Amino acid sequence: MKLVIAIVHDEDAMELIDNLTEGGFKVTKLATTGGFLKAGNTTLLIGVEKESVDSVLSIIQDVCKTRKGVVSMPSPMVGATGVFVPTPVEVTIGGATVFVLDVERFERI
Amino acid sequence: MKLVIAIVHDEDAMELIDNLTEGGFKVTKLATTGGFLKAGNTTLLIGVEKESVDSVLSIIQDVCKTRKGVVSMPSPMVGATGVFVPTPVEVTIGGATVFVLDVERFERI
Amino acid sequence: MKLVIAIVHDEDAMELIDNLTEGGFKVTKLATTGGFLKAGNTTLLIGVEKESVDSVLSIIQDVCKTRKGVVSMPSPMVGATGVFVPTPVEVTIGGATVFVLDVERFERI
Ligand code: NI
Ligand code: NI
Ligand code: NI
Repeated sequence: MKLVIAIVHDEDAMELIDNLTEGGFKVTKLATTGGFLKAGNTTLLIGVEKESVDSVLSIIQDVCKTRKGVVSMPSPMVGATGVFVPTPVEVTIGGATVFVLDVERFERI
Repeated sequence: MKLVIAIVHDEDAMELIDNLTEGGFKVTKLATTGGFLKAGNTTLLIGVEKESVDSVLSIIQDVCKTRKGVVSMPSPMVGATGVFVPTPVEVTIGGATVFVLDVERFERI
Repeated sequence: MKLVIAIVHDEDAMELIDNLTEGGFKVTKLATTGGFLKAGNTTLLIGVEKESVDSVLSIIQDVCKTRKGVVSMPSPMVGATGVFVPTPVEVTIGGATVFVLDVERFERI
């Protein structure tokens, strides 16, 4: 038995929990906040058989992979005062940090 | 030294923390929410000497064991329209998931 | 790779996260509440290379070490009824509980 601790971005958490649950994995969601530059992280605990660690990692990879996204940033209109128009800006989103720990003993009570 | 991670139902958490504390164990309660079907879980961290793991598991078993409970569900009265009477329904409550991990190093500062 | 789980007092958490981040360590903060006598704890997860465990412990020791502090406790004025004056009282503050776990597999996605 292994314990997978996955720290993911909040915006990926719902879909990840959904996909893991559909895959037959039990997920516990811990309320999380990151450090100063990491607000908006969610930590998940997933207990899995050794043989299923790769499946879990593959689901996490699939949902949380680093990708390019576009957000609208307000930027000042040229020549105007106090007028901002939304400008699409490319950002990197996603990413996850995953620890796999060995479980000495596992009990479901 | 071992680290016991216990995921229990919210309604059992208070009594469990109480009993573990009375047993001389130090408990840290993490705010938790489960997956879609698991809302209402609490995760506890308990650091214990190897010899005490069985005692901790026995306290968890005692408090959190799966048991039958009765809840009142509203059910429609026969022949009536729009009238619901509370009907006792037997449900399974309790249960816990427990991981025991080896601790390589333990420091109390 | 090791996973450091540090349970610290809330009042030390900000400075600790700050110092660890400045030291180049990635910290995940879990929302925490202690047991009955332990309200006000914060749990941090820090993934580190084996060689850096001592550095992390040293930063935790530095910020969270047990120390004497003074708090103002209201105490009744002699001879007066219903009048309380703040009296400085020496208390022990700080302290931390740290678990170091081995990480079998670590992935940054
Ligand atoms: Ni990220
Ligand atoms: Ni349950
Ligand atoms: Ni303390």
